[in-house]
Amino acid sequence: MSIEKILLDHGSGGKASQSLIAELFLPHFQNPILASLDDSAVFDIKEDRIAFSTDTYVVDPIFFPGGNIGDLAINGTVNDLAMCGATPLYLSAGLIIEEGFSALELKRILKAMGEAARKADVLIVTGDTKVVPRGAADKIFVNTSGVGCIPQGVNISGHNACPNDKVIISGTIAEHGITILTQREGMTFESRIKSDTAPLNHMVCEMIAQNDHIHALRDPTRGGVGTVLNEIATQSNVGIRIYEEALPIRKEVSAICELLGFDPLYIANEGKLIAFVGPDVAEKVLETMKANEYGKDASIIGEVVDDSPGRVFMKTRIGGTRIVGMLTGEQLPRIC
Amino acid sequence: MSIEKILLDHGSGGKASQSLIAELFLPHFQNPILASLDDSAVFDIKEDRIAFSTDTYVVDPIFFPGGNIGDLAINGTVNDLAMCGATPLYLSAGLIIEEGFSALELKRILKAMGEAARKADVLIVTGDTKVVPRGAADKIFVNTSGVGCIPQGVNISGHNACPNDKVIISGTIAEHGITILTQREGMTFESRIKSDTAPLNHMVCEMIAQNDHIHALRDPTRGGVGTVLNEIATQSNVGIRIYEEALPIRKEVSAICELLGFDPLYIANEGKLIAFVGPDVAEKVLETMKANEYGKDASIIGEVVDDSPGRVFMKTRIGGTRIVGMLTGEQLPRIC
Repeated sequence: MSIEKILLDHGSGGKASQSLIAELFLPHFQNPILASLDDSAVFDIKEDRIAFSTDTYVVDPIFFPGGNIGDLAINGTVNDLAMCGATPLYLSAGLIIEEGFSALELKRILKAMGEAARKADVLIVTGDTKVVPRGAADKIFVNTSGVGCIPQGVNISGHNACPNDKVIISGTIAEHGITILTQREGMTFESRIKSDTAPLNHMVCEMIAQNDHIHALRDPTRGGVGTVLNEIATQSNVGIRIYEEALPIRKEVSAICELLGFDPLYIANEGKLIAFVGPDVAEKVLETMKANEYGKDASIIGEVVDDSPGRVFMKTRIGGTRIVGMLTGEQLPRIC
Repeated sequence: MSIEKILLDHGSGGKASQSLIAELFLPHFQNPILASLDDSAVFDIKEDRIAFSTDTYVVDPIFFPGGNIGDLAINGTVNDLAMCGATPLYLSAGLIIEEGFSALELKRILKAMGEAARKADVLIVTGDTKVVPRGAADKIFVNTSGVGCIPQGVNISGHNACPNDKVIISGTIAEHGITILTQREGMTFESRIKSDTAPLNHMVCEMIAQNDHIHALRDPTRGGVGTVLNEIATQSNVGIRIYEEALPIRKEVSAICELLGFDPLYIANEGKLIAFVGPDVAEKVLETMKANEYGKDASIIGEVVDDSPGRVFMKTRIGGTRIVGMLTGEQLPRIC
């Protein structure tokens, strides 16, 4: 009998859990490592240097233009691994499901996870599902953790940005956050804004293959571009100057931000990265990024300066300079 | 200013998130890998063979005799790694916190996580915190994932149990589940029953160091001893016979089970393991387990038989034989 609603039984660890796994999970995640169904996944990694990351997704709504909580969760952890220069290899999936959740919706989420994993060339090798009574969680939360290997010679960290580095963003900003916001508020702008959720690991791999002057990478998710630039400025103890007019942003996203009073610098992205690269190779890296489907709108947005360590400022369109602080307060809860 | 309540801000990824991490997390989890605060933790593992596991904890109540959701989450993933013969090394922590949750309670949980990690000799190297609006989650959920290395020559899996193997349990059963149940229902038995949550990795290490005839290990958490025995019987395609009178159980736990009509075979344990070992080494392995603080009540409870593959049966105290099935239905939601 096919499952229609997720019940407490399905999280019991007993017979119903096994049916859930066999009927819903395995068809989308099939691989020999997962299939052994031991307490841990076991695999070989030849490289010594390992990257390990975790992220939990509580996005509301769980389905949105451009994706759902499933592919968002896969891409998010893939990208966190890639931002350290790692090749993402193996992911885990930990689900918390509210009793009564639709099995059909769960299937859509698992399907998106499976497809996103295939696209990013990673395997989902281990998992866990808990079902909590109605009201104890809102629909579904997804944790993904991931393991990757770092090729020899790669040394990318938020601590490594250097004066004169160019700051490159891989594309237009603020799309994920604005998509979620407009969906949640039931705003029916006649627009085609959708989440930018995407796996960036292949683009990073191409960037790394080409040269070894990529110093820092980070994906501006929660907190947006403004917060991430501040993180790097602090970690690397450098100043960062960006140019407002260089920031790529879609007209409709910019318009909604203006209408609602949001600063796109603090709105979440889920398929963008910011790269800090040596000035001599910046144009070449930019070219490589533009050749990738997820980097076609890449552009240089600023540079690292050696005064004002720990601070970020922006040359505005009208010629002024303003300090870009970290996000303070919460603009949009449950954005990812 | 010290944090009193967890607010949505604390999950924003911005300034408040940084304060939360600096004030509450880092003091308990301090280590150089975590301190780099990049998108992934980066470390070296010399062994090629890696184990990787994930588990989410939604236990209710979050504080209980013997532990809280924090040490439960650390021990759980440490044990999942150990059950594959791995040496657990690095853990991640993914928290979902309900808006308004007490910072004091969060500190107690994080302190327990830090202490449990030190006891198990693992480092918490990466993490993520999401805060959801009031009512969207019940207090706090904790995901831990973990990475360990498997020493050369170790080959332990639920698929490896062999006919004639002895089945050893590391101690008295059903304590975690009965503790949670009695707490939740406000039952005030005059008893000292407490959760058995504990890290089993050091005991496993001692067992492995001694001999290479340990075929399968599993910790009987959700679903209990009955369900785990069925899993192994199915995975290894063998029959398993256990003896009711050999099952170690505290008198008071047994009494509560009888009173409430629960079968202790299906009640969760959080600091026990079941080992399948070659018959020639069983006594020696038992001795090693008994010498460890978490194995002092270890006992041989049965053996693997070559008829009835996939089935588990129990010789009862009164001399009969009954089939032990998998757990059907859900006895106790949010047990772990």
